[in-house]
Amino acid sequence: MNGMGDDTVNTQHNDSDTLLRGITSPADVKALSGEQLHELCREIRRTLLDYGHLHGGHIGSNLGMVEATVALHKVFDSPRDRIVFDVSHQSYVHKMLTGRAAAYLDADRFGEVTGFTNPDESEHDQFVLGHTGTSISLACGLAKTRDMEGPASGIGNVVAIIGDGSLSSGVAFEGLNNAAEQGGNIIVIVNDNEMSIAGDFGGMYGPLARLRASGGTAQPNLFEAFGFDYRYVERGNDVDALVDAFAEVKDIDHPVVVHIHTLKGAGYAGGQAADTAASGEIAGHDVADERAASAVNPGNDTGVKPTENIAHAEPWHSDHCNLSDHEPHEGQCEASHWQNPDSSLGRPDDPRKHYGKLAMAALEPRFATEPGLVVISPATPGSNGITHEFRECAGAHYVDTGITESHAVAFAAGIARAGGTPVVATTASFFQRAYDQFFQEMSLNRSRVTVLDFLGGLSGSDNTHSGAYDVAMFANIPGVTMLAPTSQSDFLAGLAWATMPAGVAGAPDGPVVIRVPGEPILAAERDTSLLPLTGGRGIANVCGTAGDHSDTDMLSWRVTHVGARVALIGLGNTYPLAERAAVELAEHHNIDATVIDPRQCSTLDTAALESLRAEHELVVTLEDGQLEGGWGEKVTAYYANHRIADGCGDGTGHAEHTSGNPRVMNFGAAKEFTDRIPLAELNERYGLTVPAIVAAVTQQRRTVLN
Amino acid sequence: MNGMGDDTVNTQHNDSDTLLRGITSPADVKALSGEQLHELCREIRRTLLDYGHLHGGHIGSNLGMVEATVALHKVFDSPRDRIVFDVSHQSYVHKMLTGRAAAYLDADRFGEVTGFTNPDESEHDQFVLGHTGTSISLACGLAKTRDMEGPASGIGNVVAIIGDGSLSSGVAFEGLNNAAEQGGNIIVIVNDNEMSIAGDFGGMYGPLARLRASGGTAQPNLFEAFGFDYRYVERGNDVDALVDAFAEVKDIDHPVVVHIHTLKGAGYAGGQAADTAASGEIAGHDVADERAASAVNPGNDTGVKPTENIAHAEPWHSDHCNLSDHEPHEGQCEASHWQNPDSSLGRPDDPRKHYGKLAMAALEPRFATEPGLVVISPATPGSNGITHEFRECAGAHYVDTGITESHAVAFAAGIARAGGTPVVATTASFFQRAYDQFFQEMSLNRSRVTVLDFLGGLSGSDNTHSGAYDVAMFANIPGVTMLAPTSQSDFLAGLAWATMPAGVAGAPDGPVVIRVPGEPILAAERDTSLLPLTGGRGIANVCGTAGDHSDTDMLSWRVTHVGARVALIGLGNTYPLAERAAVELAEHHNIDATVIDPRQCSTLDTAALESLRAEHELVVTLEDGQLEGGWGEKVTAYYANHRIADGCGDGTGHAEHTSGNPRVMNFGAAKEFTDRIPLAELNERYGLTVPAIVAAVTQQRRTVLN
Repeated sequence: MNGMGDDTVNTQHNDSDTLLRGITSPADVKALSGEQLHELCREIRRTLLDYGHLHGGHIGSNLGMVEATVALHKVFDSPRDRIVFDVSHQSYVHKMLTGRAAAYLDADRFGEVTGFTNPDESEHDQFVLGHTGTSISLACGLAKTRDMEGPASGIGNVVAIIGDGSLSSGVAFEGLNNAAEQGGNIIVIVNDNEMSIAGDFGGMYGPLARLRASGGTAQPNLFEAFGFDYRYVERGNDVDALVDAFAEVKDIDHPVVVHIHTLKGAGYAGGQAADTAASGEIAGHDVADERAASAVNPGNDTGVKPTENIAHAEPWHSDHCNLSDHEPHEGQCEASHWQNPDSSLGRPDDPRKHYGKLAMAALEPRFATEPGLVVISPATPGSNGITHEFRECAGAHYVDTGITESHAVAFAAGIARAGGTPVVATTASFFQRAYDQFFQEMSLNRSRVTVLDFLGGLSGSDNTHSGAYDVAMFANIPGVTMLAPTSQSDFLAGLAWATMPAGVAGAPDGPVVIRVPGEPILAAERDTSLLPLTGGRGIANVCGTAGDHSDTDMLSWRVTHVGARVALIGLGNTYPLAERAAVELAEHHNIDATVIDPRQCSTLDTAALESLRAEHELVVTLEDGQLEGGWGEKVTAYYANHRIADGCGDGTGHAEHTSGNPRVMNFGAAKEFTDRIPLAELNERYGLTVPAIVAAVTQQRRTVLN
Repeated sequence: MNGMGDDTVNTQHNDSDTLLRGITSPADVKALSGEQLHELCREIRRTLLDYGHLHGGHIGSNLGMVEATVALHKVFDSPRDRIVFDVSHQSYVHKMLTGRAAAYLDADRFGEVTGFTNPDESEHDQFVLGHTGTSISLACGLAKTRDMEGPASGIGNVVAIIGDGSLSSGVAFEGLNNAAEQGGNIIVIVNDNEMSIAGDFGGMYGPLARLRASGGTAQPNLFEAFGFDYRYVERGNDVDALVDAFAEVKDIDHPVVVHIHTLKGAGYAGGQAADTAASGEIAGHDVADERAASAVNPGNDTGVKPTENIAHAEPWHSDHCNLSDHEPHEGQCEASHWQNPDSSLGRPDDPRKHYGKLAMAALEPRFATEPGLVVISPATPGSNGITHEFRECAGAHYVDTGITESHAVAFAAGIARAGGTPVVATTASFFQRAYDQFFQEMSLNRSRVTVLDFLGGLSGSDNTHSGAYDVAMFANIPGVTMLAPTSQSDFLAGLAWATMPAGVAGAPDGPVVIRVPGEPILAAERDTSLLPLTGGRGIANVCGTAGDHSDTDMLSWRVTHVGARVALIGLGNTYPLAERAAVELAEHHNIDATVIDPRQCSTLDTAALESLRAEHELVVTLEDGQLEGGWGEKVTAYYANHRIADGCGDGTGHAEHTSGNPRVMNFGAAKEFTDRIPLAELNERYGLTVPAIVAAVTQQRRTVLN
């Protein structure tokens, strides 16, 4: 196993990371000679490659930024000079140079740093970031306070580093437009590696290419169009050129864009022997490539190409990093992400890829007969199972809008208005960036948009990518239907329903958000013992409620086991937990609990809720997201606001032990940010475990009923 | 009174709106001769001015768009050709030409149309819009379906109309960038009137001005930088020039920007005699100006300037419409809004202006000693009481970021990170556009940003501007403190607290959203009889809870009257209603209800909630926003999830009639969109009235307790 505990790789290179190990702060970088800077870059590049193999991460973007980051710390004086990394996934090198090199050099210390900048880690980190495009606005804010408060602010130069991919995000344009208006020292370094997460999408990239080809002289110049002064650095992986360029703009008195042409993944190569770097642009290139080549399965033929001299970089960049993912292999890299660190090789797909692939496989055969069916991904397709093969096959039925969630959703609303069938897919946390478009263009307009909401619910994600808030976001928007399927078959049925042609009987008349099942559902589908009541063999509706559960009845709840006294309602990913808790209650506590899969969280099935009155004194809701603003509290409020006359002995037919007004207990997440806490630990924290639920149920019955 | 019922103005012009009255559909426009088109423009301009005086509205932007809209319908074939108006407040002329002229001509029919496009009104309207910048994305969607489905889609040309102000919005840039990438027939008409709502802000406006000055030939050309084909029309109020330009791009096979230079407010003048229009660019100019001049108080000296020939338009545009509002006068126009229709003259400020002015007056004296204190308005300052005088006086302490909520919030986070004190102000519904920045850059980063949330809660607004969702948005974000002050003094105390220097004892350690009081609070402050318990004389804390209510204790609830059995907790704007309901219960139902002002809605005061157990069997929550995801359900869930052993006769000290577990009833808004429904009617619908609350309380007590 090439597991994280294996430090063979590090040991064998201990003799070649001498400089990097000696860097404890940017002052140590400043002390290095020109030749030592080159050697440092080589060491950093080797370290990144080792780290990618063992740990995974955003390696491609960091490889491209090695020289620029070294040059930044050579020239500027962090933390007095403020350096803001957009998204901040490309800050590994910055972390290495600001006292955190060991967290990349030593495998047993990999966990010491987050994958993004974080002021709690270092005074050199300005913000916790993980979403795209805000660096320029943030830099404007830092600069504004400097210019208002003067020397007392303690702030010198303000530098934003933004990639050409991030630049497609609306807020980045807002930042550019406002920075030039604001004036003063604002240095925007545009790290142009000619690709975003899966290629660059947008009309600006043609003019940008011509700008590069002309050495920064061609018009139209987007940055000048926004009112910026402008500098171009063709050799963006040449630390000497970068030091010169940064020194020239240091302490400048007006906003300037320094456009640097870099090589994403510089120094990374796939299964073939690498060319030799020319001109020293990529210091350490040959050494690094040897290592990469030696680590890569020589049998793979998935298109990984050798590294070339960046001075004649076209056209290999876009397929340099392998965009396909049909056959995991060692050291695979999709754009900036190192998708498969050695430790995960051979493992099955995670839930996002698993269910994403299923969804795309269900849609793809329809393209031939449904010309208006369009899948839209605001970047990050691969993480969500929208494979390179699918994209190729889909042709114009697939649109990558770049990192532009707001545009993607408004675009989808337009498609729907024209009679087309749009499906927008990205992760829950990124969808926050389209909140207003969900409200206005989508829901208020009753646009029949299907939203595939990946990574919704609790996970061990970092704090900038948590999906714990998606139900509170989507399900509280008037007119949005939000499904939370608990199986593959439900997921695909929901997708089929949401994308039914408008006007067909049973088709939804507005937008449908489908929360893609997470790890608990996938685990239950792979191990049927995790669904003890239904055995994972497709959940039949044991007890009808109001709905007839036809293919188009997606809103009525499904009662999977009829019991009494206690009802367990498990939304989405918590449904398997409800089943397991019911079995435990039956086997050890003599409680035959009713079990319900609500299937959706945007409306209450009041018929189902009413049906529980007669025989149930306690209703338990489970959800793997934030309780406040979430789903379970709506069940609580329903019973509180629809009380009936007390049923005890009053001839209403209620059982002796019930009042007709069930009490409700809600299990779910607290209102808080969590950062890289394993899912099992979060479940413990929030009581989303069988023992915690059983204890609460039995305690509640003892306290209240005796 | 020049009230809405007074149709004298219309009557006297009946002889001059012959053409307009004859337009029942765009076909009637197509049938007109060139000379008739000019006459039609004159009639429309007069109609707009009359409408502005009597009814108010977005007159400035419509005056500028008269000729362009006539030319659009002369050239294109709506509804087959799809015309998407950005924000759509400039669609009055479009509505006049698509069968709805009477709604502008006849005062008694003014209410028949909304202020924005609406597919329910006409097949010529594509979307309900009211927020900025999405027209290009929506047009991309329409075009995508056309290009996928071909002739079966029934869609011809796709045209987006966007103003230069809207263009500053991030999603507009995302749309531009994606449109050029998408290709095909996408026509973007940039209506460049050289100003946004209160002037244009952004680095792109300098190059844009040079582009205009050069007749569309200068570089850098922003639109070409995004990959667009480009045409320029200098005479954007010349219907002949526009017809020619539009005919030239009709059925074009690739994305094109038609940049038209128009005159916002064309034909409107203030208190001085108007120049004569040259060259006929503004048809009807002289007539319109005579009318405007005759209607305006000749004594005003607030900077209203005469209309001039658009051929030499600089420099009057930016101060043509009066930006100040210290002295309401007839026919006043702030940028595109007709702020004071005749019917509202002499009335006091609405709550937004009233409390906004108070806030600015409180901040302004601090600028001299707090260099880092900055007020940020993503456009629309005037509506929120951020007057022209304040802006002048604040200098660099005030920043208008243009229509860029996302940028504004990230910018504020940057200011806070640098040690400054940012205050961001706009309306609740627009803040939805910064949802992700509130989550990530602001709250996750513990950025000490103060947010002034105007028009939060129920109002008679249209469906695109409702504030009914703000609590569900802000108060469910981890780490956000949301205050809901119920008086001027509380409002200013909250502002003082939120903007306290970091590190001072009692200062908040993260962001604070202050919901600006609405009409019910302002009415109560103006008429103390509306606060029968406390008389509006500053609400003292009658009964302490956990907090000591020092100046920095903003989170503990305020018990304003101690009663028993029933507690009424009225959040924010509903607090006066809680007081009045309590008086009614005491006077007519022998119930001495406890009354509580919770003051904030982001955390529960559990000490206050616990203190109610002993003597209260019913807790009623009131809020003027959406119940689902809102505040009251959290109170319900608290008691449901924190039940104590039943107190009846068990020696726990609870009163005989209580169980120690109060029941909870929630009053608030349904999860729905509402459109221009008067506040009083909404309150009736949601039971937010004294009779409804009293009836529910007494009914609940009869049903449950007997």
